[in-house]
Amino acid sequence: MDIAEFRRRGKEMVDYIADYLENIEKRNVYPEVEPGYLRALIPEVAPDEPETYEDVVKDIERVIMPGVTHWHSPYFYAYFPSANSFPALLADMLSGGIGCVGFSWASSPACTELETVVLDWLGKMLKLPEEFLAGTNGEGGGVIQGTASEASLVALLAARSRMVKRVQADHPEWTELHIMSKLVAYTSSQAHSSVEKAGLIGVVGMKKLPTDSKFAVRGETLRKVIEEDKAAGLIPFYFCATLGTTPSCAFDRITELGPICCAEGMWMHIDAAYAGSAFICPEFRPLLEGVEFADSFNFNPHKLLLVNFDCSAMWVKKRADIIGAFKMDPLYLKHDHQESGLVTDYRHWQIPLGRRFRSLKLWFVMRMYGRRGLQQHIRKQVALAKEFETLVLKDKRFEICAEVVLGLVCFRLKGSNDLNETLLKRINASRRIHLVPCQLAGQFVLRLAVCARTTESRHIRTTWTLITQLASELLHENQH
Amino acid sequence: MDIAEFRRRGKEMVDYIADYLENIEKRNVYPEVEPGYLRALIPEVAPDEPETYEDVVKDIERVIMPGVTHWHSPYFYAYFPSANSFPALLADMLSGGIGCVGFSWASSPACTELETVVLDWLGKMLKLPEEFLAGTNGEGGGVIQGTASEASLVALLAARSRMVKRVQADHPEWTELHIMSKLVAYTSSQAHSSVEKAGLIGVVGMKKLPTDSKFAVRGETLRKVIEEDKAAGLIPFYFCATLGTTPSCAFDRITELGPICCAEGMWMHIDAAYAGSAFICPEFRPLLEGVEFADSFNFNPHKLLLVNFDCSAMWVKKRADIIGAFKMDPLYLKHDHQESGLVTDYRHWQIPLGRRFRSLKLWFVMRMYGRRGLQQHIRKQVALAKEFETLVLKDKRFEICAEVVLGLVCFRLKGSNDLNETLLKRINASRRIHLVPCQLAGQFVLRLAVCARTTESRHIRTTWTLITQLASELLHENQH
Repeated sequence: MDIAEFRRRGKEMVDYIADYLENIEKRNVYPEVEPGYLRALIPEVAPDEPETYEDVVKDIERVIMPGVTHWHSPYFYAYFPSANSFPALLADMLSGGIGCVGFSWASSPACTELETVVLDWLGKMLKLPEEFLAGTNGEGGGVIQGTASEASLVALLAARSRMVKRVQADHPEWTELHIMSKLVAYTSSQAHSSVEKAGLIGVVGMKKLPTDSKFAVRGETLRKVIEEDKAAGLIPFYFCATLGTTPSCAFDRITELGPICCAEGMWMHIDAAYAGSAFICPEFRPLLEGVEFADSFNFNPHKLLLVNFDCSAMWVKKRADIIGAFKMDPLYLKHDHQESGLVTDYRHWQIPLGRRFRSLKLWFVMRMYGRRGLQQHIRKQVALAKEFETLVLKDKRFEICAEVVLGLVCFRLKGSNDLNETLLKRINASRRIHLVPCQLAGQFVLRLAVCARTTESRHIRTTWTLITQLASELLHENQH
Repeated sequence: MDIAEFRRRGKEMVDYIADYLENIEKRNVYPEVEPGYLRALIPEVAPDEPETYEDVVKDIERVIMPGVTHWHSPYFYAYFPSANSFPALLADMLSGGIGCVGFSWASSPACTELETVVLDWLGKMLKLPEEFLAGTNGEGGGVIQGTASEASLVALLAARSRMVKRVQADHPEWTELHIMSKLVAYTSSQAHSSVEKAGLIGVVGMKKLPTDSKFAVRGETLRKVIEEDKAAGLIPFYFCATLGTTPSCAFDRITELGPICCAEGMWMHIDAAYAGSAFICPEFRPLLEGVEFADSFNFNPHKLLLVNFDCSAMWVKKRADIIGAFKMDPLYLKHDHQESGLVTDYRHWQIPLGRRFRSLKLWFVMRMYGRRGLQQHIRKQVALAKEFETLVLKDKRFEICAEVVLGLVCFRLKGSNDLNETLLKRINASRRIHLVPCQLAGQFVLRLAVCARTTESRHIRTTWTLITQLASELLHENQH
């Protein structure tokens, strides 16, 4: 394909994407394929000779689309949103075109510097404490990770390294592994599975703490377990708080938890993967109070802030803590400015070496929506969830299972878990809407997350009609 | 921005990218900016109100481009290539438009299944042993990681977990950390820094082995250190071999090393990040002999195989080994097909949870180039490196420092390290070409990697003219 054909095919692809998104509602949100469907549709080996673009492009509808779960359908309510906006798509195209790999300042200064500055922009939009911003001579700063999982892991590794060094200062005869055998980390029993995975990778004990009636970890719970663990000779070093848990969008009480972590010299990381975007609205900002006690904070603009996946924003108060956990500098990665202290080499802030120019999409989105436009988007998603909640509350056969704070509604039929499991199966089997379940206090619960940018009130009402219709059928069958 | 504007702006962006790539040669390959240049060029906070697309787009040339290191300039010879091809750009646009997150089969079956099948395609193109392929009921298979760093880490964690379980079977009273204190991993002193980083993250001893005169680790070296370590009570568990090291593109002797790893029950991971693409050519395939002894193998199609970053292809013989290191299944990620054994949930094969639809670009590239087109590309890059080597060899002031096998030439002025360091500084200060150095056997060496798809013989000759001109000036100054 020469450059002239790329111009033509690129424009066709823009139209294909526009057509896809414009008509996505006509597709079943959840595919009908069975596992293994795709292998039979394409050859067993790659072609020896080039195929034409026509050959390839016709397979998008034949091979790919039948197996796509349409995350941007207005009827997609599963997991949490994965953002998709036009400014982000355009910026990602540009990022691909430039195609630089920004592991060090020198490998593409614009890639590194834009990231630092737009994470300051975003931090200011959230009113993060000054210490989290890079500014021109701050000790902290932001970085774009791929996912919140990586942020939790990076924070845990930094915390581990910091505590090992601290303990070794008092006990130079103790090995790293001996110290690690005493380390203990904590998170909520409602925390994302990736926090537990971070503990497995980092080989540290990770205790899951019970929550209160609102599914939040309270200070008293943490205080008690810390006391017990210290009495048993353990060293508490890391607490991963969640603001907006995955099952029910619960908020750990960081104003209670933070001071405890500080007093104990523990690292508090805040995982606000989903909820974090909402903190740009003054009415939701109080949920972030207590962030001043955290060592690191993370949320995913790729969830609720209209930046396409992947873009997980993470800030630390002391960049030296993160860099200290990883740093190594072979000669082929050295550059003249490295020792000046003025430059950031983001490869020391993350697990991978390479990184794409992801700040472009954050920059495009913040500028083309403006703070006000982004706030409007969040308020709209929340209002739609509230509308759905109101519909549920009006139907006495159903119950709401957790407070609706942002765009997630947890609900169920009053009745057994089996009943609800069957209802969910039928809902998803319709393929017209797509939800996933969660477990709350032993109950099987349906989760409806307002996901797509294009979901409107009419979709919410259609969705509720379908759910109640399926519920009526199910309850009717059960009565007979 | 509404959908009509996206159609218009998307087409403009296609043209911008095409113009950029078409005229990239006119730009200085390495930017002139000083650290901190960007912050002064844009406001301190994000705008409250939306800006227009014109506002944003005009800042690409004003703010971004002055700070870009142009990886796709034909005069870019630093690091290793990061691929950029039109089919991959088109596929990445499609991936962004679909915008699914493929962490589980159900979250988008096409995303998971295409990945499995095209990694079989690619594995067959490399003539990987059958055991690495997924097929319809294989125990192995492929996965796209973001970077080779992640692949080395995932392999190390799988190896650690496998060995801990094995040792615990014999010594149920030993804790994981106690066993870890005995574990020892090995890699080449020439291995990529990310292998050492993987050891740090995984908290296992990582010994760097000396190499022979061709910068390759030999079997005898590994055998000796294993014997010593076992005698000292340690447990060798992981060897990371490199095919195509970053400093000099050296090849560890896996036909010697592999049988030793197998005999010891160690995990052999092969990191062929750069060189792996070449193995699709029959003339380079012998370099991969010995892969049958490996547990995992990885290379980056985003380096030499025309697939835009990020696309790091990894295969394992036993997927259960990888999954076993991480697996955890919260209810909101469960789906009906999960227990059938037919489906792959790639979130258990990697560090992050989320993942983009990256197999599309691999699929587009393999089809639109065909095996033959990809072979041609590799042969062209190698021929250009050979051409440069010939120029160097003709000039008696210079020497070649390592065998030129693929697209990398390591060379230097005969003389001191200081002399070569000054030469490199002047080369890069010209901003017309861009190289990075390496250290080989205590010598400061210049690395010229043929990177861009568009580098031609005339660029190589112009490059050599510039280098010899700067060298002549430098040597002349030194004589006076």
